[in-house]
Amino acid sequence: MAEKYVDVDTLKYMLYDVHNLEELLSRERFQDHDKESLDMFLDSVKEFADRELFPYCKEMDENPAYHKDGKVFVHDQVKTMMYKGGEMGLISAPFDYDSGGLQIPLMTQTAVYYTLDAANNHLPGYAALTSGSAELIVHFGNKELNETYVPKMLSGQWGGTMCLTEPQAGSSLSDITTKATPTDDGFYKILGQKIFISGGDNNFTENIAHLVLARIEGAPKGTKGISLFVVPKNRPTENGNLEFNDVTTVADFQKMGQRGYCTTHLGFGDADNCRGWLVGEANKGLHYMFLMMNGARIAVGRGASAIASAAYYASLQYANERPQGRKLSSDGKKNPDENQTLIINHPDVRRMLLQQKSVVEGSMSLTFLSAKYYDIIETATSPEEKEKYNLLLEMIIPIVKTYPSEAGREAIDNGLQVLGGYGFCTDFILQQYYRDIRIFALYEGTTGIQSQDLLGRKVTMQNGKALQLLSAEIMKTIQEASKVEGLQSYAKTLGAKLQLTQKVLGHLMPHAMKGDYERYLADASVFMEFLSLVIIGWTWLNLGLNATNALTTEGKYSKEFYESKIHTMKYFFTYEIPKTSGLAEILLNTESITIKKDTEPII
Amino acid sequence: MAEKYVDVDTLKYMLYDVHNLEELLSRERFQDHDKESLDMFLDSVKEFADRELFPYCKEMDENPAYHKDGKVFVHDQVKTMMYKGGEMGLISAPFDYDSGGLQIPLMTQTAVYYTLDAANNHLPGYAALTSGSAELIVHFGNKELNETYVPKMLSGQWGGTMCLTEPQAGSSLSDITTKATPTDDGFYKILGQKIFISGGDNNFTENIAHLVLARIEGAPKGTKGISLFVVPKNRPTENGNLEFNDVTTVADFQKMGQRGYCTTHLGFGDADNCRGWLVGEANKGLHYMFLMMNGARIAVGRGASAIASAAYYASLQYANERPQGRKLSSDGKKNPDENQTLIINHPDVRRMLLQQKSVVEGSMSLTFLSAKYYDIIETATSPEEKEKYNLLLEMIIPIVKTYPSEAGREAIDNGLQVLGGYGFCTDFILQQYYRDIRIFALYEGTTGIQSQDLLGRKVTMQNGKALQLLSAEIMKTIQEASKVEGLQSYAKTLGAKLQLTQKVLGHLMPHAMKGDYERYLADASVFMEFLSLVIIGWTWLNLGLNATNALTTEGKYSKEFYESKIHTMKYFFTYEIPKTSGLAEILLNTESITIKKDTEPII
Repeated sequence: MAEKYVDVDTLKYMLYDVHNLEELLSRERFQDHDKESLDMFLDSVKEFADRELFPYCKEMDENPAYHKDGKVFVHDQVKTMMYKGGEMGLISAPFDYDSGGLQIPLMTQTAVYYTLDAANNHLPGYAALTSGSAELIVHFGNKELNETYVPKMLSGQWGGTMCLTEPQAGSSLSDITTKATPTDDGFYKILGQKIFISGGDNNFTENIAHLVLARIEGAPKGTKGISLFVVPKNRPTENGNLEFNDVTTVADFQKMGQRGYCTTHLGFGDADNCRGWLVGEANKGLHYMFLMMNGARIAVGRGASAIASAAYYASLQYANERPQGRKLSSDGKKNPDENQTLIINHPDVRRMLLQQKSVVEGSMSLTFLSAKYYDIIETATSPEEKEKYNLLLEMIIPIVKTYPSEAGREAIDNGLQVLGGYGFCTDFILQQYYRDIRIFALYEGTTGIQSQDLLGRKVTMQNGKALQLLSAEIMKTIQEASKVEGLQSYAKTLGAKLQLTQKVLGHLMPHAMKGDYERYLADASVFMEFLSLVIIGWTWLNLGLNATNALTTEGKYSKEFYESKIHTMKYFFTYEIPKTSGLAEILLNTESITIKKDTEPII
Repeated sequence: MAEKYVDVDTLKYMLYDVHNLEELLSRERFQDHDKESLDMFLDSVKEFADRELFPYCKEMDENPAYHKDGKVFVHDQVKTMMYKGGEMGLISAPFDYDSGGLQIPLMTQTAVYYTLDAANNHLPGYAALTSGSAELIVHFGNKELNETYVPKMLSGQWGGTMCLTEPQAGSSLSDITTKATPTDDGFYKILGQKIFISGGDNNFTENIAHLVLARIEGAPKGTKGISLFVVPKNRPTENGNLEFNDVTTVADFQKMGQRGYCTTHLGFGDADNCRGWLVGEANKGLHYMFLMMNGARIAVGRGASAIASAAYYASLQYANERPQGRKLSSDGKKNPDENQTLIINHPDVRRMLLQQKSVVEGSMSLTFLSAKYYDIIETATSPEEKEKYNLLLEMIIPIVKTYPSEAGREAIDNGLQVLGGYGFCTDFILQQYYRDIRIFALYEGTTGIQSQDLLGRKVTMQNGKALQLLSAEIMKTIQEASKVEGLQSYAKTLGAKLQLTQKVLGHLMPHAMKGDYERYLADASVFMEFLSLVIIGWTWLNLGLNATNALTTEGKYSKEFYESKIHTMKYFFTYEIPKTSGLAEILLNTESITIKKDTEPII
């Protein structure tokens, strides 16, 4: 059994040294917190994760949540996650004091959930989705909804879900058909089916508040006619009891991974007795949902990075313990009289470990950066500040969601490979992480959809202003690094890659200007891969810069700690950044291979 | 349920049109066969696979082989695979008439097993390994071993395995410790443990012949002291009965994929009563085993390509049936009044389908080419011919094994993604193929080991002669394609990539010449990826050339069939070949990031 799943030093290093959380703490919202109190919170979460999450990770895979007699049965630890987690403030922590929260920064909450996700990615979702759906009520719901639902949700007594997807619509939310019919009693009658609902049912919490997208009769077609409703599994009655609200668990989806985190098919109003309460104004549901989407997408990136972290430490431990093979001597042969060497000494194994570490820590740093932008927006002291960081956040969000999911999958693939045949065996956990992470490229908008968002909306936003702001941030790091011995060549490389980005966009943009959006976006997924490497290159240059400075000023961690960061930066610039050259070549193509014409069948 | 797993037209096109099987049939060994008779054989195999393999693929995943009370229990279809398959000649077909075979070319046998593997990759291994171990006995065993084992194995009554790996040795075969002690009775006493033995036990065949690598007492250390033995599960007695030979099934390995194909841990001689019979001469065991290894590695590449084929057709069918989303109009918006479009019309989905098709058919073509080289070697009419094709085969073998395994995994990843959330659900088969294929990068030498073989042995073999011969073959295709309208630019690109290969080797080779093999081989896995793309680029240029010629001369398949090949070639040159630029940049690095030094910890 692996012993380590996350490096707490690295988490704290990212929070305080790299991304300067303490600077944020001077803002009014966070003024009751200091590093010491937040570290105590983080340490207690690590201890909780060690005891209540990590030991059950494999067991939850082997004993998946299941559907029986209209109910979903989940692992006992779900109860601990919700109730104990609720008590600890894991659901409520980032909320306002007014709503029962602790007003902790999202940066800290991200470190908290990174730890939980790395320990056992089958559990935190139950709490996180409850938190997310409560957030919708807090932001857009009326007083009554707030009073009825929020306290119960934040304490973990009631769960919460987001119900977007329908069978006939998939990712195409404009095709949602779930119906909401107004009544004279202040509620709507809800009728429809929702699929892929994470945490949609369980045998522990006494109620679940579903946040449901539906269409009020007569609403405009498409995304502009979608409203948001609270539809509880059991509705609170006037005397404070709960009565069944005609929300049925039709089935569950058994999955390849994350098997302990149930995915359900819910029916609303099969018996014509399902009530929903409108959140905010009619026809603004998708807008509300998407205001929460940045948080949800940060969470997906965080979760993927965290699973890759657990896989990294499991494979690192194996590589440090497993003797096999020998070093090549100068005639290219091996001497069988020599003892076997540990596999961590083989360059190919080191390459696979460094690839993992570069993905895990590079994406961890980007995740914290996005959380920092989020916190700055929440506490902005001027409209200009809010606008600037909002643009920066919007710009990186698709990458924050996608890079950890896609590169994390490759990282775990390497982790599995480090174990050789054992990596494929169920006695070892690598194969589970390999399966678990695969859903992250599908969650909250697939990689294809994120890529369309990145190139189609974010790059073109306000005439490219978001990308300009981001480029300016990157240039700042490049300029600083250019002054530091040992970093110049990396700074120069990154600068060249920024220029290459401009060249690529200069090639693509004319398609958009001609109105040929299909062609403009045809290679969006390739652009995603390209720009992700540039951005993660930036996070590594920044980490390298920080670690180099810390080495000369005797930072608080060990010499090995900083050297290992610098070495991983070098890995990233030597083995990952060069891939952008090939990807740029693809993007600069003048063919239209993937756009459908009648003469080019796929058979 | 998907309906198609392999395109028989494409299989036959590769065999006859692209790789000219009929030319081979004029050779003495194959003279009793013609296209018609071989096609009948292939068609009967397809019909067998449709009926007896494909319908059980999912069921075998869901009900894995298991170990209980010292026995391994497998799915009932294993019996059909061995007995019916044996009757049909699936185990014996490529063997000499003298050994009870049909002397069919390996090319045909490869098409046969491609079909079986694509239909259900959990079954054919039982037959294929029996075939492979019988081959060792035929080639190197004495008359008695041949008479005792081969007929029973080729009929499918007895199974066969290869026992190489031991717990303490892993891929490092020089560390094998299984002991063979000579007796005066013509046999050896065997004592040791073998792990990861595919098809190591089952509840159907009456016996299993294990081909075991072991060390005779006093043998030299390392790989030069390893001998090969036949060690049956039950040993034939003089009166023709079988008695238990002290081969115990200690445990099985439960795996993430290929769960119907058992993997076992075998003990030999726990009760000091295990007998083995030496195959050929002492201390030549590894040499014998490696003479068979090319066939085994072709088989791995074939299997991976076949699973990717099944995944491709499953995702293609889904893309052709699933409506979702709309085409972007010239203002970059979608019109909700329009009907949804089929997802196959979205460029990003087409990209993912074309990537799959390019990997499946590119690797299929390479697999047939390697089988053709094999057949030419077996029937060579001059030592020069034998030598030439032997070098060509040796050169491409690591790629034949690795590219389908690694790129096939990426292809299935795309296939899963085409299905969106459904791809992750166990109701759909994509997630199974995603798991199944993952073992192919581990089988018969991991990707790391194949890469060391490619760069460390094959590239340097006879002062680079093998690579020169291969380059000459590639140049032939380039020259032909250069004369054909529409192919010039692709021919030119491939020529440039050949030159880039020389540049890369010019950069790496000095390390080897200085005796720094560790540095020379440090990036072998990156070189593998690089050269694989060049080689598959060659197979696609060749396919494009053939299809273009067929279009002008009215070939036997439809216009769409040929156009689809040409279009996929264009995809490969536009989206895959450019990646070599980035990979070459990595290979040209002057750092030594992955070579262990004391100052660069991985923590």
